[in-house]
Parts: sequence; C-alpha cells; structure tokens
Amino acid sequence: MALTLITGGTVVGPTGRSRADVLLDGEQVAALLRPGDTSLGVDLASVAQTVIDATGKYVIPGGVDPHTHMELPFGGTAASDTFETGTRAAAWGGTTTIVDFAVQRTGERVQDSLAAWFAKAEGNCAVDYGFHQILGGVDDDSLRAMDELVAEGITSFKLFMAYPGVFYSDDGQILRAMQKAATNGSLVMMHAENGIAIDVLVRQALDRGETAPSFHGTTRPWETEEEATHRAIMLARLAGAPLYVVHMSAKQAVATLARARDDGWNVFGETCPQYLYLSLEEQLGAPGFEGAKWVCSTPLRSRAEKHQDELWRYLRTGDLSVVSTDHCPFCFKEQKELGLGDFSKIPNGIGGVEHRLDLVYQGVVDGRISLERWVELCCTTPARMFGLGDRKGVLTPGADADVVVYDPAGHTSIGYPTDGNGKTHHMNMDHSAWEGFEIDGHVDVVISRGKVLVSGGEYHGHPGHGRYLRRSHSAYLR
Amino acid sequence: MALTLITGGTVVGPTGRSRADVLLDGEQVAALLRPGDTSLGVDLASVAQTVIDATGKYVIPGGVDPHTHMELPFGGTAASDTFETGTRAAAWGGTTTIVDFAVQRTGERVQDSLAAWFAKAEGNCAVDYGFHQILGGVDDDSLRAMDELVAEGITSFKLFMAYPGVFYSDDGQILRAMQKAATNGSLVMMHAENGIAIDVLVRQALDRGETAPSFHGTTRPWETEEEATHRAIMLARLAGAPLYVVHMSAKQAVATLARARDDGWNVFGETCPQYLYLSLEEQLGAPGFEGAKWVCSTPLRSRAEKHQDELWRYLRTGDLSVVSTDHCPFCFKEQKELGLGDFSKIPNGIGGVEHRLDLVYQGVVDGRISLERWVELCCTTPARMFGLGDRKGVLTPGADADVVVYDPAGHTSIGYPTDGNGKTHHMNMDHSAWEGFEIDGHVDVVISRGKVLVSGGEYHGHPGHGRYLRRSHSAYLR
Amino acid sequence: MALTLITGGTVVGPTGRSRADVLLDGEQVAALLRPGDTSLGVDLASVAQTVIDATGKYVIPGGVDPHTHMELPFGGTAASDTFETGTRAAAWGGTTTIVDFAVQRTGERVQDSLAAWFAKAEGNCAVDYGFHQILGGVDDDSLRAMDELVAEGITSFKLFMAYPGVFYSDDGQILRAMQKAATNGSLVMMHAENGIAIDVLVRQALDRGETAPSFHGTTRPWETEEEATHRAIMLARLAGAPLYVVHMSAKQAVATLARARDDGWNVFGETCPQYLYLSLEEQLGAPGFEGAKWVCSTPLRSRAEKHQDELWRYLRTGDLSVVSTDHCPFCFKEQKELGLGDFSKIPNGIGGVEHRLDLVYQGVVDGRISLERWVELCCTTPARMFGLGDRKGVLTPGADADVVVYDPAGHTSIGYPTDGNGKTHHMNMDHSAWEGFEIDGHVDVVISRGKVLVSGGEYHGHPGHGRYLRRSHSAYLR
Amino acid sequence: MALTLITGGTVVGPTGRSRADVLLDGEQVAALLRPGDTSLGVDLASVAQTVIDATGKYVIPGGVDPHTHMELPFGGTAASDTFETGTRAAAWGGTTTIVDFAVQRTGERVQDSLAAWFAKAEGNCAVDYGFHQILGGVDDDSLRAMDELVAEGITSFKLFMAYPGVFYSDDGQILRAMQKAATNGSLVMMHAENGIAIDVLVRQALDRGETAPSFHGTTRPWETEEEATHRAIMLARLAGAPLYVVHMSAKQAVATLARARDDGWNVFGETCPQYLYLSLEEQLGAPGFEGAKWVCSTPLRSRAEKHQDELWRYLRTGDLSVVSTDHCPFCFKEQKELGLGDFSKIPNGIGGVEHRLDLVYQGVVDGRISLERWVELCCTTPARMFGLGDRKGVLTPGADADVVVYDPAGHTSIGYPTDGNGKTHHMNMDHSAWEGFEIDGHVDVVISRGKVLVSGGEYHGHPGHGRYLRRSHSAYLR
Repeated sequence: MALTLITGGTVVGPTGRSRADVLLDGEQVAALLRPGDTSLGVDLASVAQTVIDATGKYVIPGGVDPHTHMELPFGGTAASDTFETGTRAAAWGGTTTIVDFAVQRTGERVQDSLAAWFAKAEGNCAVDYGFHQILGGVDDDSLRAMDELVAEGITSFKLFMAYPGVFYSDDGQILRAMQKAATNGSLVMMHAENGIAIDVLVRQALDRGETAPSFHGTTRPWETEEEATHRAIMLARLAGAPLYVVHMSAKQAVATLARARDDGWNVFGETCPQYLYLSLEEQLGAPGFEGAKWVCSTPLRSRAEKHQDELWRYLRTGDLSVVSTDHCPFCFKEQKELGLGDFSKIPNGIGGVEHRLDLVYQGVVDGRISLERWVELCCTTPARMFGLGDRKGVLTPGADADVVVYDPAGHTSIGYPTDGNGKTHHMNMDHSAWEGFEIDGHVDVVISRGKVLVSGGEYHGHPGHGRYLRRSHSAYLR
Repeated sequence: MALTLITGGTVVGPTGRSRADVLLDGEQVAALLRPGDTSLGVDLASVAQTVIDATGKYVIPGGVDPHTHMELPFGGTAASDTFETGTRAAAWGGTTTIVDFAVQRTGERVQDSLAAWFAKAEGNCAVDYGFHQILGGVDDDSLRAMDELVAEGITSFKLFMAYPGVFYSDDGQILRAMQKAATNGSLVMMHAENGIAIDVLVRQALDRGETAPSFHGTTRPWETEEEATHRAIMLARLAGAPLYVVHMSAKQAVATLARARDDGWNVFGETCPQYLYLSLEEQLGAPGFEGAKWVCSTPLRSRAEKHQDELWRYLRTGDLSVVSTDHCPFCFKEQKELGLGDFSKIPNGIGGVEHRLDLVYQGVVDGRISLERWVELCCTTPARMFGLGDRKGVLTPGADADVVVYDPAGHTSIGYPTDGNGKTHHMNMDHSAWEGFEIDGHVDVVISRGKVLVSGGEYHGHPGHGRYLRRSHSAYLR
Repeated sequence: MALTLITGGTVVGPTGRSRADVLLDGEQVAALLRPGDTSLGVDLASVAQTVIDATGKYVIPGGVDPHTHMELPFGGTAASDTFETGTRAAAWGGTTTIVDFAVQRTGERVQDSLAAWFAKAEGNCAVDYGFHQILGGVDDDSLRAMDELVAEGITSFKLFMAYPGVFYSDDGQILRAMQKAATNGSLVMMHAENGIAIDVLVRQALDRGETAPSFHGTTRPWETEEEATHRAIMLARLAGAPLYVVHMSAKQAVATLARARDDGWNVFGETCPQYLYLSLEEQLGAPGFEGAKWVCSTPLRSRAEKHQDELWRYLRTGDLSVVSTDHCPFCFKEQKELGLGDFSKIPNGIGGVEHRLDLVYQGVVDGRISLERWVELCCTTPARMFGLGDRKGVLTPGADADVVVYDPAGHTSIGYPTDGNGKTHHMNMDHSAWEGFEIDGHVDVVISRGKVLVSGGEYHGHPGHGRYLRRSHSAYLR
Repeated sequence: MALTLITGGTVVGPTGRSRADVLLDGEQVAALLRPGDTSLGVDLASVAQTVIDATGKYVIPGGVDPHTHMELPFGGTAASDTFETGTRAAAWGGTTTIVDFAVQRTGERVQDSLAAWFAKAEGNCAVDYGFHQILGGVDDDSLRAMDELVAEGITSFKLFMAYPGVFYSDDGQILRAMQKAATNGSLVMMHAENGIAIDVLVRQALDRGETAPSFHGTTRPWETEEEATHRAIMLARLAGAPLYVVHMSAKQAVATLARARDDGWNVFGETCPQYLYLSLEEQLGAPGFEGAKWVCSTPLRSRAEKHQDELWRYLRTGDLSVVSTDHCPFCFKEQKELGLGDFSKIPNGIGGVEHRLDLVYQGVVDGRISLERWVELCCTTPARMFGLGDRKGVLTPGADADVVVYDPAGHTSIGYPTDGNGKTHHMNMDHSAWEGFEIDGHVDVVISRGKVLVSGGEYHGHPGHGRYLRRSHSAYLR
C-alpha cells in the first residue's frame, strides 16, 4: 500500500492543536505520531512513498461543504457549475467533501428526482459527495419516500418556506415532514423566509418601479427571515424534531435560534461567507445592474445594522454551528442578466465553493474566531452534523485520508480579472463575487482519500475520483 | 524507553470517537494508529513492553479536576484529605491531574502562601498537580504578586464574594484584581455568593432557633448566587477581563451567565456532581444532623425547582463548560460535628474527587449528555481552560501519557459501609456523600505519564509520582 | 331634563377612587361633586328626579365588552343569543356597551356583510353597540372597503390565522390588510392560531380515534398560538401597523407579546374570563361529552402549566390590556351536540357576556388585581382602545351616562340549574359555562345613557334603547 | 367659602381628556361639570368669586415632584435653594407638591434628622411638601425608627449603594431595611450605583490626571448603574419588598428593571428631564470646566448610545413610572468651582424643579408620549406612588384644589442670561442647566389648595402657604 507522510506540521482540530506527523495509508489515515517519532524503530520518512513537508503549516481535515447546488435548475436557467467543474473548484479550495441537493418538485416521485441527481454526479466528481433531498411536494408518497432514502444514506431533507409555487411547503406540509423526521432520525433543513409575505413586497416594489438588484434585499427584510425561523422552530417543537436552518443572514433570526438553543432545543444554524463579509449597501447596492452578482436568498444584510459582526460573534459563541457556501453560481452574462429590468427574475445564487476555507481563515487572522473554531466550523461539525463524522472532518486513525495543508504564511488573492490574462478561480463563472479579497493564508496541499489533488499550485485530480457518501444519522441527534 | 500499547478500544474525544490503538512511549503519547495497523511493518503488540487490551472499552484522556482543596484550613479544622490521600483517591477515580488552591489571607504575602502550598504537595502526590492562587487580601502587593505568579505558571486567581472577614473581597478589590488579570492574561475564578446578605440571613435564622443543617441551604437562597454571578459578570465587563464562575448550583445564576455568553462575553461556568444529583430536600434536609454531610457552598438546591435538571441541560447546551468536584472533605465525627446546634459552624465541603468520572458518565447512560461531551467536560475543557491543553485532556501525539480505560460494561457501587467490612472509597473520610450511588460503568485502567496507577482493581501508584504543572494561559482567552 | 343623582358611593377609575356624587342629566354625566356638596347652594338630592343611594358601593362606568358574537353563523348553526337576548344579558351584568363583529366571507362585498349586521342589531339592542368588521376575504375590493368603513365608524378589522377555508387569511393577505390599516389609522385584531398546522393535528387525532372534546385542546397546543402571535407581530412590524391580539390563552404567547411591547411596539393583548378560571384538565376534559360546553378557540389551557395564574399576572403588570368575553354561546342540545363523535364539529364558543364584570371583580377580591385595574380592564381601556373613550368607559362630565353601582357586600351565584325552578342567567343558553361560580360582589344598578336598566333585581330595559356607536380611531394610536 | 371656576378648558387625566369646568371651593375641588352646565339651574360663572378662562388650554392637576433636595448639605457645601426659594420656583413651574429628603447620617438618630428637616421647611414653603427619609446608617435603632416614621406619614425611605463613607449602605443593611419595609408597608427608594467600584475608577482616573468634569461620567459607566439596579432588585426579592429606583439614566439598567417587572415584581423606576435631553458628549463634555454644571449622579449618558431615546421609550411603554427632577442646585461660582482641578469634588446636582412640567410637555409636542401620559408621569403617578393619591395628582371632587392651566399655544424660553437684563428662572442659581431650551407650551395659571400662586406672569404666593403632607402608603402596594 502507498504510504504518505505529512511531517513537521501543526495538526489542528476543534479542541486544540499539536505538533504531529500524519501517516496516510492508501485511502485512510493510518496514524498520528510525534514529529519524527522513532519509538517503533522505523524511520517513517524513508518508508513512506510520499513525504509532504508541512513545517510551519497547519494540517487539517479536508473541508466539508454541506450546502452546494451544482447544476441546479432555477429561474429558467441552471447553476453554471456542473458536478465536474464545481467539485474541481472545491478541491482547489481545500474542500474534499460536498453535500449537494437532489430536487423533487411537486408531482415528481422523490426517488426519481434522486436518481436524476445520482446520474448527474456519478463519474464526474473530483471529491467525495453526498446528497440531501429537497422535498418540493410533501404528500403521502414523499413522506413514505423519506424512510426509504434514510436507508440509502440520505439522512437530511430540505424544505422551503420561501418560493411559493416552486419549492414552497405550507406549515402543514412542514409539520408532517418534521413528524416523519422525528421518527426516522433524519434532519430537516429549512430555508426560512416568509415567501408569502415576500411575494407581496416584491409585487409592490415592482409596481412602484423599483426594479434594480438592491430591491431584492429590501423586499426580503430581516423580519421575514426572523419570522420564518421562529415558525420553523415552533413547528419542530410540535413535531419533536430537530432543525437545521440554512444560510442564516439576519442577526435577529440567529438571536431567535440562540434563544431556542438556550432552552435546550436541538436547533442548529448555518451561515455562509457572503453573509459574513458582504452587505446590502456595498455589494447588492452597487450601481446599475452590478448588484445582480450578489442576488441570493436570504439576501445580504445591512452593514449599518451590523449583521456581519453579529454573525461572526454567533460563530464564536457557538450559536451558529456551520459555515457552508450555498454555492449556486450563475454567470453574469445571460444568466444574471435575465433579471435586467426586474430584480425578481435574477437567478438567486452566489458562487463560492472554492473560497470557504480561505474566507473563514481570514476570520482567524482578524481575531474573529480561533484557529480551532475554523476547523470545527468548516470541517468537523459539518461532517458530524450530516452523518459523516466517522470518516470526514477529523484526522483520526481510520478516517478517510482527506487532508489539507494550510500555509499561514501564504497569501491568496481572490478574483477573476476580465482583462484577459487568465482567471484566478476555477469555478465556471464569468466573474467573482469575491473580487479583490485578499487572504492572509493559502491552501497548499489538498489530499482526498490519500490522493494528492492539489500541490505546488498544480491540480492533479480528475473526474470520477470522488465517490458517493452514504451518510449515517447526524451525530448531534444520537 | 518503555512502550505501552492500548489496543482494541474506542478512543473518545470531544468531537467524536474512533477505533484506534494508542501507543505510549515513556511519559508521552507517541502515536494513535488504526487498530492492529501494520502499514509500518511493525507488530506493535510485540514491540510494546506492556499491552493493555481495551476491547469493548473507552480510551479517554486522564481526568482533569480543576477544583480541589486538599488540606484546606477551614472553620477551625482542615479538609481531611492530604495531598497524598486525596491524589491517591483521584487516581483511583481516573483523575490524573488536579488543580488545587493555594490560599492567601489578608495580611499574608501571596508568595509565602503559595510556597506553603508547594511544600504541602511536593513529594506527596500520586498524580500531577497545579495551583490556582486564592487572593484573600487584594491590595497593591498582592496585585503585583499576580504578575509574578503568572510567570511561574499560576495563571488563575480565585476571589470570594462570600465569607466576609475570611476570604471576602469587596467590589473594588474584585475590580482591581480583574483589571490586573485583563493585563496579564490570567483568569479570575469567582465564588459568587452575596456573603454580606447571607450573613444577615444566617444571623436571623439562628436568632429564630433554626440551627439544623438544612438551614444552611435556606439562608443561601438562589437569589444570593444569581445576584453575585451577575455582579461578577458586570465587574468583569468593566475590567475587560474574562471570568470563570466556580461551583454553580442555581439555575437562575447559570441563566444569567448564559445571557452574558450569548452577548459574546468571555464568561465560563463550572458545576459539580453534587449539584447534578443531590438536593436540598433529600440530602441537606436529611433528618437530625445527618444533612451536615452535604453542607457545602454554594448549597444543594431544591429538587422541586428542578435545578438539577436544568444544570444537566446547561452542560448539554454548552453554557456550563466544566465539571469539577470542589473536593473539600470533612469527616463527620469531630469535623462536621463542629456545627452541632449551629449549622453555620459546620465546615463547608463535600468529598468527591474520586467519583467525578463515574458520576458524569452516568449522565451519558441516562441520556443527559453525549459520550463525547463527557470527555470534554471532565478532561479536555478543564485542561484547556487552565492552560494545560498541550499536555493534558487530550490523546494526541506528544501529550502526556495520561489515559483512562473506561469499561461501559463494568459497574461501580459508591459508598462507605460503616458496618465494618472494608471501605469502598479511598478518600480520607469516615462517610460518603454518595452512599448508595450505582454507576453503570467502571474505571478500569488509569495511567499517569505512562505509569499504570490502577489496573485490575489494584493500586500501583506512589506518593511523589505526581509533579507540579506550570500552566500556560487559558486556551479560551487566546 | 331628568336629573339622576348617585350619591354616597365611591367612584372608581383606573388611577384612583374617591368619594363623590355623580349627577346625570338626561343621557350624559353632568357633574361629579363632593358627597353632599352644597357649595353651589343647591340641594342636589331635592332637585334630582331620581336619587340612587350608593353608600358603601362602587360607582363605575358601564362595562364595555369589545368582543361579542351575537347570532354568529358558525359550523352549520348560529350563536344562540340574538342581539336582543345577548344585549339584555349584557345589561344584567353591567355591560352597557358591546362591540360585535360583522362577518365578511370570501366572495362577499364587505359593505353588504356590514349592512346585514346593522340590520340584525337595529332596534333590538338593550345597550349601545358598535361593530368591528371581520375580513374573511382580503382582496383589492375589501382593502378599499376598509377606508370606507373607517369613515363610517368601523375603525377595527379582524383577521384569522385559524380556520383555513372559512375565515383564514394567508400571510400576504394579512400583510396587505395591515398595510392598509397603517395608512387609515385603523386597528387590526388577530385571531392568532396556526390553523394550517392545527388542521393537520386535528386530522391525525381523528384518524387515531381521538374524538372527545378534550382533543379540541390537545390539537391546538400552545405552540400554535405562540407561533401565530409572533408571526402576527412581525407582519405588523413589516407593515408599520399596530396589532390587537384577541382571546389570548397561552402564557407563552403573552410572553412573546410582552417582549414586543418592551421593545416599544404597539401591540396589545386581550384575554377572557374563561382563560383566567377554567382549564383543559377540569372543564374541557370533563367526562364524556360534557367538555363540549367549553370548546372554544383558542382553547382552555392546562392548569398544571399555570397559564391561568400567568394571565392574571399579565393583567396586573399591564401586558394584557383588556378582558372581553368572546361571547359566542351555543346550546348544548342540538348545537354542541353536532360534535358528538367528532370534536372538530363542535361549534366553538362559550357564553359569558353577562358575567365579565363579576368574574373579573372576583380577581380583586382574590388579590389578583387592584380595584382600579378592574375598571381599567373592563371599562376604560376597551373604550379607549376602540375609539369610544370620549363617551364610554369613564365617568367624566359630558360622557354618556352609563353607570354601574357595584356592591362589594353583595353576592352573585352563577349558574343555570336544570332542575326546573328557574334560570339564573339571562343568556339564551340551556346551560352555563360558569355553573357553580360564586362571586363576592354584585351588580346592583345599571344605567345606560341615563336610563336605569337594572335595579333592585328588576330589569327595566327594552329592545331598541341601545344605539349604534360610530367609533373614532383608537386612543392608543394617536 | 370662596368659589373659583376654571371654565372652558380641557381637563386632562391619565386615561383621557374631556371638556369640563372645574369648580374649586376653598381648598378643595368641589365639582367637575360639563362646560357651562346649567342642569342645576345655577350660573356658575356668576356665583364664583373667581373665574379663570381656560379656553383652548389644558386643565391638569398640580405637578408632584417626588424628588427634591432643598438645602441639602453635600460635599462641604449645600444645595443653593432653600425651601423658600426652591418651592417658589416649583410653583412658577406648575409643581404644587414636592417630596423632599430628610437626611440621617451614621451615628445620628433618625428622628433628630427628620426634626431638623421639619424645621427647615416649616413656614417657608410656597407649596405643600412631604418628606422621604434618607437612612445613612441602618442599624437596630434606625430600623425601629422606620416604624415610627411610617406612623407619622413618612412612608418611604431612601438608601444609597453609592457614596461609600457618606450615605452608603452595604447589602446587609439594605436587606434589613427592605425586610422592615416589607413588614410596615413602606417603600424603599434606591440610589443604584456601585459606589465601591466607582471609587476605584475615580481614584484611577485622578491618578491618570483625568480631572475634567467629563470624567465624572466616564468613571460611572452604565455597568455600575445596571449592576446596582439588578442587585437592589434581587435584595428586594429576598426581602419580599417593593422597590423604587431613583434617577435612572442607563438604558441597560431600565432594561433590567423592565425584565423584573415583566416577571411580576413590584419594582418601579424614575427618571429626570436631564437624562431625557442632555448627554455625556454635549453637556458634561463641554469644554473646560463648563461641564461642571451638569455633574450629577447617576451621570448624563452618551447620546451615541441612545440612552435618551430609550428612556423616552420606557416612559411611553410604562416601565419607567415617574419623572422627577432630583432638584439639587449648586451655583457655578464657589460651589461647582470646588471641583476645579478634581471632578470628584464637584458638588453633584442639577437644578430643575421649575422646568419639569415644561420639559416633559415638550415630549408630547415631539410625539414621544401622549398628553395623558404627561399628566400621569408628572402628577398622578408620583402622588399615588407616595401615598398622596387621595389629595394630589388628580382632579376629582374632594381632592386638593391644586390646578395648573397649561397653554399649548404659549411658549417658554428657559435660561438665565448673565448679560444683565433680568433672570428668567426663579431658582437660586447663577446659571441654568437648561440654557437655551425652548418649550412649545406655557404654565399659565398655578393654583395651590385654591389659592392662585401664579397668573398672568405674576407671582402671588408666599412662604408658609405650603403645608406638610402626612403621607399614606403607596397606592401601588395595596
């Protein structure tokens, strides 16, 4: 078997860091040892086929992004990254596991929709992948299907309180799905926005001639997110089910979640880098149609109201558990432009699967969170939350050999210059939502199940390396 | 060097469990490996001098009890465990590190008091030990001494809002000590009870002829703990300092702490097994003078008011960070009996250093907390909280080889039969505060810096094995 | 003009009591004077045509019940009190003003529905009456109608989050109606229960064979009320509109309202005597079908959870502003019995318009609220809340001469013996929801616009005395 | 007897306004009547000796200022208003009742201190007055004295958590005084600032050379007020006693009070105009020594932190119950100047007894509170809170004939020009804390027990008109 030794680095986990060598044996972590340990009478560096020098660098588990939307059909177009391009970009950024969303719509069989997503991903992925199932039409059939999917390793289901007529479930449907989750141990993920109220506000804005991208934000005020979050929590309490609220952006919504957590309820919150750094005023409110790049839901929030600072605080204090990307890229040309003259027609989504580790690491540099919390938020907790904790998100013997060597002395410039001399990201997008961001660190080496995907600025991966992950129940619900 | 292999067990840490072998090399953890790993071409079981079979058992870091009072002078007597007897009992119970309290009283030089405690412990301890410093007389000299002690590895200081005339500091003294802590990076630990108000209530109770042990509890109502906790938090905010509140027992006090944590303040709470299991009605209110066994401060709280349930909940949700014992044993005869006819003269304290791992593990069995949280509360967090995280509380290569093999199929009966046929605990007490408690698990093997202290029901330790631990700053304040 | 002098009593208002004589001149209060005042050289007792001796008694404004449903069509039957019988019962109980609800259903013109209610009431009422308008079908037409109705003295509009398919409005309809209210100064009243979720629970209960009346309560758990209350508040904030939540029964819902009030929002809560005295366990859970008498929505709540005590507390601390009756009587025979074998078919409602002053006064006797607060809750605030404060709910010169002389030394036994010898209430019901209640006080004299309706246990009123009240805007929203 | 008729005005009370004539007979209100009422066959205007035309004006009860310090010895000097000058100024401003503070210091007999204050006031006051008793030395004697004083009409006692060594009581003393209050029905008023902590901050600031007036504010940060407020509440709960917190200025302290009120505790808050309008930045931070004019405790708070807006909000929502002045005037020359070079030596206090009605009325004009709330905060509630509700703060038959005619069309310019042409306030101060404030209203006529004190811009009062008020228990504690 091929042995790989990562030597000289500082291994970082959620509850500490230590100087240790990591030995990979084929697809697994074989051992963690004292640096240069000789107690066994073996010179590890000489027996290992590959030796990676991590001196001065952090050695962490590969990133786990539990919220991506490759090839998602939306608003008459589809997310611009395929599983091939999207997972390659993920690998570039140190993310070695994604959990994407299969989408059922009203009238479709859940199993059929899942099969379609399996087909899209199979043979195309650069890194390992799992699926959540979106339920767009909760009824007796889809409720029965939930049990079946859990048995197949789909242990989480996403519902929408937004997008009436598309993904929207009413409170009765939500309650029934949650009751089912309470019995089969799965986890309900919620897009928590009051879509019914938002549709009224959108219609009124358009009637007033407010068509620019920034009105996407003003017609989805924080009250619509806080209200839906609270409602989802109460329905979960009624059902006796846990709850995971995706892409939270409003500080008031997280405050409501935190209150429920204080009361002992199993409710969890996720946010995304865009909500930590970008704002309604600066990005979404950019002149002309430029803001369309940052149209996503929930929307970017006001900097003046300090949502960004508060979300960092909640990441630190633990009331937000996960940072995902909600990667859902659309090109500006022809895709975002569908909403020229009508913000409500702009496809919702931002691409970022490549930049999560870097962007959250910058929070460490800036003193927002600890180094350990970075690993917990980006790797360990997402894996454990979605039933992958035995293999992913940790560097323990027997775990998958997914490793990132991160260089705190490196530097990363994010962007996508259109001036001709080459692109600097690897997502299939014609722009970057993160143009101009400078990161005081760098993803140096990326290993997936023992295979080096990225090293020395070169990409060594290939489509099909990534395998489907059959997931267990969430570790937080045991 | 001597190699020890612990094989076949499930290694448990705060964020997960995995089947792994643990290799100890002398006093350190050398490596964690896949069970029976042969990738290096070495048969570990044959090279190791000692092989411990942990099949079907949990392998965890040695327990860290950050709150003990060996030989503490109190109320005209002294805690009945010496460093020798107390640390031996700790070892029996799987605790391989204690942090005890050196005590300065008004008028004493801090350095002198610390020297006295060094002398008491040196050469006598079965397990490693560190010291917090109690400041009983905050003044210019003792404030200066704080800096000096930090340099010597005493990075935490305890103050009392209770016990006027004994350990009590007024709010000005507290503020000044906290300001000093804010500058030298140390952590202030607080006994948070409003001692001034309590003294009035005690005097009034005694005047009414209320002399039985239960009145110890009724004269220290939850309001006195909640108030002091809130006050300590506000003084810490004024000082810009972190805060660690010891032995919390009132749910309202923890609620106040939780609110401050939600707001992003660096405040931490500790509780003890007695507050999780015992109550004002049942134990402290036992007939006659029996309740004296459970006189401690903060006092046991009302079962009817569900403080115990709420504390378990706060352990689960994370607002309480640590379980210590506040081990402060007094014999019933001659010691507790000092308070016959006057509860205020009963020495305050309960012995329990031996039972913490077991008692908190029972919470896992009962579904109160997860297995991972057990390790976090009893091992990892106390070590990290008090600057020992690099060596204690974790099983990582390079860490001290402090290991407990815990048997979930074993059983432990706690108590101290007085009917003559042998004692069942090892603390120097003539009774047990935990008489009759049955634990669905058992401390099987205890290893301290590579040395097996307990195995097969035999004790192999000796006084002087334990060494003084120079502590770094708290990992939570970096 | 006819002068009436009420002499020797203690006049009670929301902010105090004083010994004073009240002089009525025709339909108005002419003056309040010191008892036996002679400063004007006039012997009032001799110039007054009528002298009422109120010595030892309380003189208060006539009661204002802002929530009644006379002749309400519901569930295939109709509330058993007509405007004639219901307002006569109100008069007996010291209530001299009611505000009833005109009902628009989807597809009806609002104006037509209101006209129908005018027709029902006109010429039939014993006391003065106004109307709120129920909007069962919010659309462009009914939104326009709101402005028209405000101009006609209908300044409050009720919406339902319960009863899908009957009165239910979705969140978009609610938002639009609230936006309209924000512009025309009217007040939105909300039945706050999540009817969509409740319908699921009801269906599931019936599927399990749970058909008895008590399941009406268990299928409307407090979460469904709290959730809807919170949602209504957030929608009101979005709209910039005030909110009045009717018949609150769950302590958690009121806590949510209280939090919004603390934050400065114009949100108001109403409760009813049934929620202050009766419970899920005792009344709704009575053996057999008996509990049907107490089927109303929101439902009676658990005594064990202390909702009743908490509601009294909120009345005292001011977070609940009004006590109404939600008078909606159904006979047991043939009406309540429609739900034999299926609780969901039991007409929802309890009759109580006659007993409100007595039942709330008992709270004064029991030390729950002050005498002043009794008057405020039952008379002054409901009048001011609904734009009647200039004429009703106060005893000031120029106000309508609506007066109750209440005897704290009297006694009232509530009930409706079925053993044949005469009924003891005056509502058109074949039973009493208040059977067996004993009140330590008595409504002695009732005067409406100068006319004595009740005196000496005799009824002197007649249909048609009561007049329609064109209401101003709420005094709390100026 | 002399009859006075106030005709044509709008009588305003806490729960409404109405057009009514007010008839005064000697020292009492004889009657309220419809404007120009003739039902008794008497032409009131012709029988009254005095007729005051209040057309277009508000007729309200005379103001009640429950917090003044005439002639208070403080910091080596004394408040510059005597009872003669201070009550005259009060009268000019429409305040017809004050409750001042008798001061006991440690070692003095409470009764002696009270006698001294009786002597200062007797024969000198322009308006009626009562006394609270300050307890500066709680011990067995002073606790016994509390009962005695209650019997004499001193039903409220003030304690200080600030000013160690001067007025300061420790928590034990506070608890004992509260316990006494709980038994004799009196009300404890609290100056809630953590004086022990503040003294440390003050000393440190002076050591750093921070001597300017603004450091008075920065050394009394909001945490010291919030902490003390919370502590006072918890001690009150321990004692089972009500609590009235004086001169609240920090929004966080009021939030803490509000939470206790939500929980049903009898705790009340008072603020003062200076905290509603003035700020740390603008006034206390004025250049040079100018800020000394606004040195008072609690201090003015930061405008940037919006304390002023929040206090107005709490006045509106009811969590603050009273606006007093804490009138404690010191001249700039020779008095405030005692603190030149050392802010801690500046006498604490602001003069404002004359301006309260005007300044709070401006809040009505600005839309902060309703007209009714103005009367409640300045007249009715202070009277009821301190056991004067039967005679003061209301316009009901039999109440004292204390009346203010307030002209909403008038204007008042506050200030005290030093340029020579006459002073514009009547307090004995050489400056005004309210220089430049313009009020959109005017105190037109002021009547005290039937005697016109102010009318047509002329003063008709005289020393000795004001009488001592023996107070009952608080109406809020019945």
